[in-house]
Parts: sequence; C-alpha cells; structure tokens
Amino acid sequence: MLPRGRPRALGAAALLLLLLLIGFLLFGGDLEYGRPPGAGTLDGDRSADRGGHNHSDCVPPPPPLPRCELLHVAIVCAGHNSSRDLVTLVKSVLFYRKNPLHFHLVTDAVARNILEMLFYTWMVPAVRPHVSWIPNKHYSGLYGLMKLVLPAALPPDLARVIVLDTDVTFASDIAELWALFAHFSDEQVIGLVENQSDWYLGNLWRNHRPWPALGRGFNTGVILLRLDRLRQAGWGQMWKLTATRELLTLPATSLADQDIFNAVIKEHPGLVQPLPCIWNVQLSDHTLAERCYSEASDLKVIHWNSPKKLRVKNKHVGYFRNLHLTFLGYDGSLLRRELFGCPSPPPSGAEQVQRALAHLDEEDACFEFRQQQLTVHRVHLTFLPHEPLPPRPHDVTLVAQLSMDRLQMLEALCRHWPGPMSLALYLTDAEAQQFLRFVEASAVLSARQNVAYHVVYREGPLYPVNQLRNVALAQSLTPYVFLSDIDFLPAYSLYDYLRASIEQLKLGSERKAALVVPAFETLHYRFRFPSSKAELLALLDSGSLYTFRYHEWPRGHAPTDYARWREAQTPYRVQWAADYEPYVVVPRDCPRYDPRFVGFGWNKVAHIVELDAQEYELLVLPEAFAIHLPHAPSLDISRFRSSPTYRDCLQVLKDEFHQDLSRHYGAAALKYLTALQPPRGPT
Amino acid sequence: MLPRGRPRALGAAALLLLLLLIGFLLFGGDLEYGRPPGAGTLDGDRSADRGGHNHSDCVPPPPPLPRCELLHVAIVCAGHNSSRDLVTLVKSVLFYRKNPLHFHLVTDAVARNILEMLFYTWMVPAVRPHVSWIPNKHYSGLYGLMKLVLPAALPPDLARVIVLDTDVTFASDIAELWALFAHFSDEQVIGLVENQSDWYLGNLWRNHRPWPALGRGFNTGVILLRLDRLRQAGWGQMWKLTATRELLTLPATSLADQDIFNAVIKEHPGLVQPLPCIWNVQLSDHTLAERCYSEASDLKVIHWNSPKKLRVKNKHVGYFRNLHLTFLGYDGSLLRRELFGCPSPPPSGAEQVQRALAHLDEEDACFEFRQQQLTVHRVHLTFLPHEPLPPRPHDVTLVAQLSMDRLQMLEALCRHWPGPMSLALYLTDAEAQQFLRFVEASAVLSARQNVAYHVVYREGPLYPVNQLRNVALAQSLTPYVFLSDIDFLPAYSLYDYLRASIEQLKLGSERKAALVVPAFETLHYRFRFPSSKAELLALLDSGSLYTFRYHEWPRGHAPTDYARWREAQTPYRVQWAADYEPYVVVPRDCPRYDPRFVGFGWNKVAHIVELDAQEYELLVLPEAFAIHLPHAPSLDISRFRSSPTYRDCLQVLKDEFHQDLSRHYGAAALKYLTALQPPRGPT
Repeated sequence: MLPRGRPRALGAAALLLLLLLIGFLLFGGDLEYGRPPGAGTLDGDRSADRGGHNHSDCVPPPPPLPRCELLHVAIVCAGHNSSRDLVTLVKSVLFYRKNPLHFHLVTDAVARNILEMLFYTWMVPAVRPHVSWIPNKHYSGLYGLMKLVLPAALPPDLARVIVLDTDVTFASDIAELWALFAHFSDEQVIGLVENQSDWYLGNLWRNHRPWPALGRGFNTGVILLRLDRLRQAGWGQMWKLTATRELLTLPATSLADQDIFNAVIKEHPGLVQPLPCIWNVQLSDHTLAERCYSEASDLKVIHWNSPKKLRVKNKHVGYFRNLHLTFLGYDGSLLRRELFGCPSPPPSGAEQVQRALAHLDEEDACFEFRQQQLTVHRVHLTFLPHEPLPPRPHDVTLVAQLSMDRLQMLEALCRHWPGPMSLALYLTDAEAQQFLRFVEASAVLSARQNVAYHVVYREGPLYPVNQLRNVALAQSLTPYVFLSDIDFLPAYSLYDYLRASIEQLKLGSERKAALVVPAFETLHYRFRFPSSKAELLALLDSGSLYTFRYHEWPRGHAPTDYARWREAQTPYRVQWAADYEPYVVVPRDCPRYDPRFVGFGWNKVAHIVELDAQEYELLVLPEAFAIHLPHAPSLDISRFRSSPTYRDCLQVLKDEFHQDLSRHYGAAALKYLTALQPPRGPT
Repeated sequence: MLPRGRPRALGAAALLLLLLLIGFLLFGGDLEYGRPPGAGTLDGDRSADRGGHNHSDCVPPPPPLPRCELLHVAIVCAGHNSSRDLVTLVKSVLFYRKNPLHFHLVTDAVARNILEMLFYTWMVPAVRPHVSWIPNKHYSGLYGLMKLVLPAALPPDLARVIVLDTDVTFASDIAELWALFAHFSDEQVIGLVENQSDWYLGNLWRNHRPWPALGRGFNTGVILLRLDRLRQAGWGQMWKLTATRELLTLPATSLADQDIFNAVIKEHPGLVQPLPCIWNVQLSDHTLAERCYSEASDLKVIHWNSPKKLRVKNKHVGYFRNLHLTFLGYDGSLLRRELFGCPSPPPSGAEQVQRALAHLDEEDACFEFRQQQLTVHRVHLTFLPHEPLPPRPHDVTLVAQLSMDRLQMLEALCRHWPGPMSLALYLTDAEAQQFLRFVEASAVLSARQNVAYHVVYREGPLYPVNQLRNVALAQSLTPYVFLSDIDFLPAYSLYDYLRASIEQLKLGSERKAALVVPAFETLHYRFRFPSSKAELLALLDSGSLYTFRYHEWPRGHAPTDYARWREAQTPYRVQWAADYEPYVVVPRDCPRYDPRFVGFGWNKVAHIVELDAQEYELLVLPEAFAIHLPHAPSLDISRFRSSPTYRDCLQVLKDEFHQDLSRHYGAAALKYLTALQPPRGPT
C-alpha cells in the first residue's frame, strides 16, 4: 500500500501533466514502441475462473531453479515509516532465502539516507543492495506511480524482477516465487495475484466508480515483471496512453499504480500471468482472502494492504500478525549468514573487518574489548519521522546516546531542550519496536519533529559508547553540537544561551573553542530543577546539589573551577588537566570519539585530550549548567564493572591511545603522558 | 548429547545390573520375542557408500503426507538445563510445522514440573503434550539409556515416532522428516543419520576402543522408530543381549544409548534405514559435517552434540549459531497460531479463556485491563538449576517479582537473604537469555542453590503484578513466605529472626497471623545498610532514612505504628485500616493475590484486605525491618501512569473487588467499603 494522500489532492489535469512529465524524465525518447498493444493472448480458461479461489491447483509445481541463481527484487520506498517496513520485509525474505539476492531500492532522499547506511552496516553476505535515489521533486508525492516506470528506471540489461510493496511479509523462500517466471507464456509480461476484495467490481457503494479491471482485478503488492519484454512491448507508451484516456472520464481520487496496471491489463489481458493467491494474501478490510488461505496448507506472502495495517479486523489476524511480529523483532544480525555452496564476494567493508578480526589473539586478555571495537553494528538512522528545520548559523544539536533503561529520560530532556537533538539508541530489534511504541504513546515525544533517533543494533557484550556517540555526532545537522550524556538535564535556558554565546564569541570562523557547560548532580529522585543560576547556587549551598562526581571523581571536572564559575559574569578560559571530562559545545566537525573505548571508562577523557591536542580553547560559560539525575547503574555497566579484566584492559587501551597520540601529534602529546596518574575510577 | 557423567563412574558390572533392572521394570514378561535378531536385510549398497557424504541423492523425494496427519515426537528430558534446551527445540519445530503434533516427553521429576506447566500455559493449538514421569530412582542418572526403552514405554498402539535429543534445532518442517518413514523397507525399523565423526572407527587415539559399529556408526540425536515392528521383533530382548555381551569385554566409560544402538545395528544391519545427512548435521568437535552441508542447499536439523555446545570450534559455527539463536530468543507466544485447514480441539484451558475474551467489550474503557487479566502467560518454572534443601518446619521463602530493569537488585538481595527465594521474572524470551547470562556471570548468584527463578513471559501492555506474585507464591516450598518487593533489602538478620519468631509465636498450628516487617526507605543511591535496629533508628533520626512512602503515601504503612515500633521489645498487634499495605510473613497457604489488579495500583492493598477478612492477626515484629532502595520508575510503571484511563479503571476494579468481597464474606466485608477513601496515589 503506497501513500495515497497527496495524489488525492491533485486534480485530474495536474495528474495528466505529471504522467507526461514522468514519461519524459525517465523514458526520454529512447524506448522502442514495438508491438501493438493487445498482441498478447489471453489465457481464457484462467481469466474465466478467477473468483478469489486458490490458483495453486492450476499452476503445476515450477521446475527447480538453477542453484545459486541471482534473484532481483525491486522495492519502492519513501520516508521514515516505509523504511522501517522495508527492513521487516527484507528480514522475512532473508530468513527463508537460499539464493543470492540483488535488491533494487528506489527511494526518496530520506529513505536513501536510511537504507544506504542500513545495508552498508548490515553486511549480509550474498546480498547486493542498490539504492537509487529519484531526486526529482516534481513527483515526490507520486511514489505510488513509481512501479510503472521500473522497466525504464532499472538497469537496461535486467530482464526479470520481483517487485514488492514494503507492507508485505514473506513466509517462504522467494526463489519459489521467482520460479513462477517459468510459467509465463511468450506473451506474458506481468505476474500478479488477483485482487482479494470486491473493489474493482464497483459495487462497494452507490456511485462507486473504480478504474476498469478484469473481474476483481489484480493486486500490485507482489509483481513479477519481465522487464525485457515490457521494454520491447513499449510499456511506457502503453500505460501512459491508457492512463491518459481513463483520466479524461474517471476520478483521480484513488489513483495509484494499481489502477493503471489494471486498466492496461483490462485492455491487454494477454499480458498477465495470474499467480497463485498464496503469493499475495491480502489482509485489507473486508478481504476475501480466507477463500485462499483456508484451502492452502501453506502461505507464502502476506500483504498488509489495509490502512489499519496490523490492527485490521479479521478473525484470523492473530495468525498473520504473529508471522509479521516474528520478523519485526527478529535480530537482523542473525541474517548475516553466508550461503553454503554459493560463493559470493563479501559485502563491501566486510572483508576488512574479517581480516582485522582474524588478526586478533583469542588468548589476549582484552580480546573481548578488541572484538567489540571491530564490531560493525547495524545502524538505522532516523528510525522515526524527523523533520528538522533548515539549519541556522549558530544552531546547536544536543548529542547523546542511551539504551533501553534510559528511555524515561527522554520526556524530561525534551522539556529542557527545545532545540534539535541527535540521539543514538543501542537497542535490540525487539527493543526498537518497544521504543517505537513508547514514543507513540508519549504526547511530548511524538510532538517533536527535531529529534533524530538513530538506532544502533546491539551486538557483543560491551557497550560501544564512543561508536554510539560518533553515530549521533555524524548525524547532527547544525553547525554546533552539545556533547552531553543522557542522564543530564540542561538548564531550561541553555539552548538559547548557547546559540547566543556562539554568536557573541564568534565561534567557528574566528575562534576555535570548546564551550564548557558546568556539570552538577543531585542524589535525590524528587527534585525541583533550578530555574536560574542563583537558584542553583542556593541548592548547592544547602547541600541539595553537588558539583558532578564531587564525591567519587573530582578530577573529572576540577579544571572547570566551580569557585570561579560562581562569581563569573563572562566566559573564562581554563587549562586542560589530566582526566578532565567536561561537557562541551563544539563545531560539528570536531574530532570523533575514539571507538577503542568500549564498555565504560575514559571514553570522554580521551576526546577532551584530542580537542586539547588540536588546540581548542576551553571556555567555561558563566550561565550554562546541566544537572545529572541519579539512576541505578545500568546492566551494561554492572556487567562491565564486575569483569576482573576491566581495569587491566582499560590501562592497555589508554597506553595504546597515548602511543597513537604521540605518533599523531609528536612532542606536543608528551604532556598527556607526563600528566598521567595511576588509574582510578572515571566513567 | 545425553549426560554421560554418572555412568562413567559406574563399573561395567553395576551397569549390567541396571540394564537388567530396566528391562524388568519396563518390559515385565509381556513382550513377545518374535523374530530372531538379524532377520532384517542389509541394504548393501548404502552401507558401503557411507562416508559422511550427503545421502540426499540416494533417497528420492518422499511422497507428500496426508494433510493434517498427526505426527508423534518423543523427547527424553531430565533436569533444568535440558528443559531449557527442549523449549528451544520445540520452538524450532513449531515454527516450521504445518501438521498437528503429539509430543511424548519422558522426564525426571524436575523436568516434569517444568514442562507440564510450560505446555499447559503455552496453549499451542494442534499440539498435544504428554509428559510421562519415569519415577524410578534406580536409574535416574541413566536417562541416556531411556531411548532404548521407548518402544515399551510409549503407548502400545503408537506405531511410529520421531525421537529427538534436546540439543537439536530444526531448520525445516518436521513433516519432511516424518515422510521418510515411507522409505523404510519391510525389515527396517530404525531410521538414523550416519555419525559425522571418526569416533567409532576407533582411531582417535592409541588404545581407543569404541563400541562396535557399522563403519562410522550412526548418531542417535534424530531417530525414526517403527515402534510396532520393534515390539514385534523383540527389541527389548535384542538390545539387552547385545549390551550384556559387549559389556563383558568393553569399557563402560562412554556408555549411552548410542553405543548400544550401534552395537545392535552392527549385528543386525538390516534394521537400519540410513537417513540423509542433512537431517542430523552434527557439530561435534572435529566434525566431518562440512562434507554434508557444503553440498546441501538446505539444512534440515542441526545437532549441537559437542559438550561445548554453541561454543564449539568450527569455521562455520556462526552460521549454525544464528539459526539456533533465532529460536532461543523467539517469542514463543507467536507460535500459538492455529493450523488453517486442520481443525483440532483447542488446548486444555484455552477454550475457557477464549470464551471470556469473547465476552469482553472492546469499547469498554478498561478493555485493556480486562484483557490483560485474562492473558495466560507462558510460565517456565525454575528456569535455572534449583536444588533447595528439604523444607524445615519454620522455614521462610522470600517471594517477589521483577522485570529486567531490576536484575541489579539480585546480588544485594542474595547477600541480605541467605534463605530460600521464589522469584517471578517478567521477561521476553530474549530477555530470559540475557538473564541467564547475567546469572552465569555473577559469582554470588551462581553459587546459590536455593533461589528459584520462574520466568513468566511478557505479553500485553500492562504489568501483571499479582499474577507474577501468585506464580512465585505457589512455587514456594517452605511452610512460610515473606511477601516482599524486589526493591527492598531485608535486614541481614531477618531470615534467622523470622524463623525464630515463627517458632516462638507458634504460628500455624495455634495462631493464624501475618507478621509485619516494617518498611523504610532511602532516597540516596549510596547508602550504608544499618546492621541493627539501633543503627536504623539513628539513620531515621538523622534524616538519612524515612519510613516507607512517608512523603507520598503515609496511609500505606501508618497502621504499622512506627512510633510504637521504635520502643517495642515484643511483637504487637495492629488493626487493619484502609489502604494498609505492609510487607508480611504468612503461611504458604495464604490467600492468593487478586489477579484483576494489573499495571500498578492497589495490588497489595487488596491482598491485605483479604488477609484481614480471613481473620489473620496482624503482628508487627519489633526487630524486623526492610529498606526500599531508590530507583527510576520502570518503563512499565511510566507507561501505565501516563495512561489517562488509569485512575478510572483502577476505581472500577476496586469497586468490583469490593462487590466480590461482599459476596464472599457478607456483612463482615462492610467495614472495607465504609473505610474507603477517595482514591489517591498508592502503588
């Protein structure tokens, strides 16, 4: 089911124009207009017998495929929500597949960004993803017509392709579907399953005037396309002629590719090869699908083509939902399994990782740390809709990372920080679904358009804190970033104050600086957040607040010089000292965090060293503050701290970091080594 | 792989005795000893060609099964760990199956308890579980021989059965395996896959003397048994003769059913139907399985028959592990899907639930609450090994429930409470695996034998707090229970003190009482737990501790009368009052918690009302205390509290509770109604 919102708002005339435009843009004048429409022959028996029944008995079992044959799948995908759907669809396909696959993903700019990163980091062997961005703004609302232009948009040497809607779920091996190409007669070019509703019969309501179709028509959620023959048959010309003619008399209100496919087929019935109903079990409202699945012992593809999706009313919906939920929560990294007996080149980037992993010594006490550093986590950028404002010159994005046990912080954080945020969430696939429901259930969170949630999928025993920070940092769209932690609440005024300070201090062009936001903490759960610096100081004096880690690790923030901050009216410069780990505002192009620090320990310290080595001034802002709220130690941190090798490995990592620093910055890095203290407990 | 530990310790003579004993116990004298051994014919070609190669080419595709044929599967399962393995195996079978299944589970007492509850609460349509307990202690360590006696132990009218080890994982439909029965010749009685290691060749080390076998021998992780023919052929006599003879000359060190099966087959090669290797891909150390799977496009069953299990070294182990992990973390409730076209009676108990659910009104504002109350959660009792001491007369079990976000409490709780605990954990299947790893990684937790962890699987949006409490309560094995909450730490002395008090107060026989353990709280994370009542009082006076919910909900504990407790030297009686919800010690047969209270609210209050209505005295113990530690609100509670219907529905539930109370206790219940206050925020 593709978005039908925008086309509905367009008049028929505008649509006509658009159709011509698409044709012009994509087809140019290069296509041959060979065979006259209607040259295909209609398989009369089949079309006469189409009444929502199972076609499986009329199609003999297809011959087995050549082993390891590469199968091509095209999917049109636009926007955040469809991108999530697509992932679930792809998981279901990969789960059952035994063949190498080539995915042709036709996307808008949002989906392109998401899917390129997703497939790059997914690294599934024997899967070739190819993301094509259709950049033309003229028909950005018309992705619903995109399937019609696939013969022209896909590579010209591609002869066959399976086209899928993002809202289908596979329950079997896609090779069985591909094998149905073998049943095509010489004239047939499109394989489709009959529509499992009475829509095209035109009797759903008074004056219901659907587009023309053969009988119940066909559903286009699952299509087999003979691209070679379509190109030869002048498909581009064919569908535009039909669409143009029909648009003269028909309402365009429900226009989508499916109407046009059906209108063309009505005119040229010989083009279609009807497929067994089990390959597109349509769970629309008032579906007739039960006629299909109650007879079949085996369902192959489920199609959630009701606008209500999984909430559709259907007495068997529980059954279908379970199949779908299977893949929704399925750990996608388990699908990174090679195909035995079908040698294929490793996915891009995978070979390098494999080589590095192969060089690790399993007997090394820090093996787990090194393995975790090398782990490539699947990344799903902007998991939820994200509509940021165009970036403004002094704008700041709050950057942080979290796992499931800190979701409760999000609402408060949103209340304290109205500006853009880029958050990396370390989640399992199942947790990502819980997270989605959590946001949907929260009025505060669902109202925000400028918070980008990037899901980094869990893998391995140690929390990859700096990899997470780097994902969130890289996705910030504003010129400045506030590098925070999820359990800090910023002062209500901080967002405005930071932008004003950046402007005033002429950061960026004239000054290379990191602005320090002084950090405090409360040990109490119930806590009235101070509305001003004066109020904060009063709480500090009364013992309700402390400077951050005052009791356990004062070195981490001592250089901020809280005594001076009390009195300060203007920003003041402070000097780096060992173990300093303030929360800072820096330009977006600042150094990345060192990903070798996994688990917990020294991860921020190393970043501040790097900033200092690159000669960032450290400027403390007199009116800025953030307060850390108490929380139980996370499971990740507990597990980590109880590990006896933690201290030793952290020391090894620190030594290696310093070696690299010397290599990079030469004698200038000497001060970091001499400043070193025997290790004690930082975060 | 069945446990080989104990038999190793036994001498050959003792084993001989046991074998005879088993024969006597199970076979009696009733069996016919029909055909002479060796009457079966050997399929010479096949046995000659067995070299670890793929047999799939020599076995033509089996004819399709009659639709909806009932398939029988037997699994021998003993102990906690095998029970967990069995669940994963069963999930993999159910995921791919399309036929009704009858599981014959042959268990010890531990596995019986676990599996009966598990299958009862799992309620999978078209699955009949039948748990047989083999109660004889004489061979409790010899479950490794149990497969040999299945022809006698299984129902006499059962003709065919698939026998599986608990450490196999299915990657395809078990009906395809069942269909291989059709290839059995008239003489063949056992279908087996060749052993995929050189073990039986006897050349693994100097003086390696394996049991006799045909070539590489056969692996018994997956067996097709023609029970009817085995019985006719006098199987019981046959294997005992062979085993007895071999034991005279062979070491019994590695004795398990597999050795005896192989020895019998060596003698009577005509009995065996070799199965394609893909039906038992054996991932033992030094496996030769690659010869099988590198040629097959399709793996059917994986067998983790190395003692290292998933950690076995094998260059493709990642591939197999991913298949296994798929089901390890798979939400088992998604397998509760009916088989379309194979009508079968609903699972025991399911019909009643279905009827009740059907009566609910979806428009009812409290629909979600009512639906949650009726949800039958899968329950896996004693998920981890649990070896409690025999119950002592005044012993007390600590009863509590938790979800993932409170795992961090467990270690501290174990340090504070050395006695038995019964804990219900509300987890997803994937979280249950995380939990397992968490306990394994903790020296404190893995050392404890007397903590029973009962996993209740998550389903539905609301936390079923009272259902969880009831599971933990029902599984307590001591005469008394301390009904606590997971975020309370008891005084170090509490366990001893409670047992002494129970004895002194002559609870049970002479006195029906609930002993109140006064509750306190700290708002600080870092906190030194008081070692005595005096120390606690000092902390209370200094403002470091409060009585529990002193600020938000003093009514909940006011009747405990903390002022009196300060001075008390002996237990004192207090009166029930509205909203009282103390933590109490009661006999195990106390009233159950009312499961209608889901989410958060009034769940303990209702239980105390029930105790009072049943005339339990409320006795406060002068030296007892427990302290609540601070924590962020759980995700469950946040979601719940943000629900606008919460207050309303809680009121509806309370009203219904009071109606039921009046119905049950008559005029005596009037006081609870009149004591009612306008609702305010209790837990």
